[in-house]
Amino acid sequence: MVETFLGEVLIDPFAVMNTIGLVAFALVGAAKAIRERFDVFGILVVGLVVAFGGGATRDVLVGRIPLALQNVGEIALGTLGVSLALALSFLLDSPDDHPITLVADAIGLAAFATAGAIVATEAGIPSFGVVAVATINAVGGGAYADILLDRSPFILFEDFYASPAVLGGLSFWAVTTVGWTVAPAAAMCATV
Amino acid sequence: MVETFLGEVLIDPFAVMNTIGLVAFALVGAAKAIRERFDVFGILVVGLVVAFGGGATRDVLVGRIPLALQNVGEIALGTLGVSLALALSFLLDSPDDHPITLVADAIGLAAFATAGAIVATEAGIPSFGVVAVATINAVGGGAYADILLDRSPFILFEDFYASPAVLGGLSFWAVTTVGWTVAPAAAMCATV
Amino acid sequence: MVETFLGEVLIDPFAVMNTIGLVAFALVGAAKAIRERFDVFGILVVGLVVAFGGGATRDVLVGRIPLALQNVGEIALGTLGVSLALALSFLLDSPDDHPITLVADAIGLAAFATAGAIVATEAGIPSFGVVAVATINAVGGGAYADILLDRSPFILFEDFYASPAVLGGLSFWAVTTVGWTVAPAAAMCATV
Repeated sequence: MVETFLGEVLIDPFAVMNTIGLVAFALVGAAKAIRERFDVFGILVVGLVVAFGGGATRDVLVGRIPLALQNVGEIALGTLGVSLALALSFLLDSPDDHPITLVADAIGLAAFATAGAIVATEAGIPSFGVVAVATINAVGGGAYADILLDRSPFILFEDFYASPAVLGGLSFWAVTTVGWTVAPAAAMCATV
Repeated sequence: MVETFLGEVLIDPFAVMNTIGLVAFALVGAAKAIRERFDVFGILVVGLVVAFGGGATRDVLVGRIPLALQNVGEIALGTLGVSLALALSFLLDSPDDHPITLVADAIGLAAFATAGAIVATEAGIPSFGVVAVATINAVGGGAYADILLDRSPFILFEDFYASPAVLGGLSFWAVTTVGWTVAPAAAMCATV
Repeated sequence: MVETFLGEVLIDPFAVMNTIGLVAFALVGAAKAIRERFDVFGILVVGLVVAFGGGATRDVLVGRIPLALQNVGEIALGTLGVSLALALSFLLDSPDDHPITLVADAIGLAAFATAGAIVATEAGIPSFGVVAVATINAVGGGAYADILLDRSPFILFEDFYASPAVLGGLSFWAVTTVGWTVAPAAAMCATV
């Protein structure tokens, strides 16, 4: 399985990272909304905002139309993540504190930091900008959700949260600048 | 009068929908700010944010400079809506609960969903993206105003609010895909 | 010294105004975060958001990739402003109320209104749009910081705050339209 995964990363690393990030973050966002006792519509909105907020901001910053508006597969993946969170909420008491959700959060963060670094590099952004775009891609959706839920974004209080995204972006840049191709850099960035 | 209106919709449906939406939403936003007992400057800011927030986000998402920055008529229409709200506030006790404001909100929502659907279609966005842009155009300004007023956006709590916008976008797409022209689709979308 | 400054303004007024604004607003934002007793990471985030928020919004509105992502010097200037605020916080009790911070706020506001007016003019935005972009450039960063800190943006309550930005944008437009070059207009706009 690991080999298959690495094989796919070597073919189109952005698609893989983006898919992982969308499902993981939609699950995390929906779990947050479930805790706030929102109805199904509110859970769907918060889940999709967490899943698409970071990537849409990234796309606007590099000057292109957000992928989520161009690709129906993106919406399907987001809805899948929300559905997983709803299924979890029937099995568990507080889905947003469950290890599954925490692991999904960490995985989504790594995947979106990598996806952001890939997009920024392809857009010709220089290295420090790549780190900034990777960080925005990774923490943007969660920050928007916190603003929607009317609380101060967690990134200001949990400084260890954004650090992996910054590190991931840095390591992606370090690897690409020494002349490797994008694919192994993405794999390395995601493992940080 | 209905015939004149339909005649105009057939000539430039976007301009008509946009005009209606701007005046209606500026009135709704200003009424909200009046209730919060803001001064005239604050009322003007909130009114213009509600009027222009959704459309500016739509324009940035489809990759063009917001119309509000390019067309002085847009600002004039927004200011007209704010002035109407101020006039209402001298006649009524709670202008934001008055039927006139509620009707303006419903009309603005339908008009902006239609305007968003037209812009997204012309930008070559596929069908599901058209529905997303129509919804953002319709509910964006109100959501920004709620964030400015430091409360959780109503769209999370009043799920019937966004539904007409989603439905409007869907019906616009359904009508255009069966081969009609944009104009009757806009008229149909606005009536949903 | 005044002559050297005017000499630089005549060479590249945008670079000068942008440099002044970045350092001044990073200082103001960091001082706000210090008052909220954030740790160093939170202080850095709030400082950079105030410094870059307005300019990044301006760049997205006129359809280009934000300068902060393209120019490492921008990040360096923002970090310099945050460092100044940290240094001040060791010397003073409440750095965000200190005259140095208040003066930096006024200077940053004037500088960013001018920078925004220059960018909007070069992007071919008509006059009223120039005033809007100048105002957004000047007040955007502070408004984002207030939203991050979960309070209603000050611009709604302190109406004298945004007024200089609007006036600056108006004076810039008034000067440029009568046929002068950009440089003296920028100097005049900054003094308003």
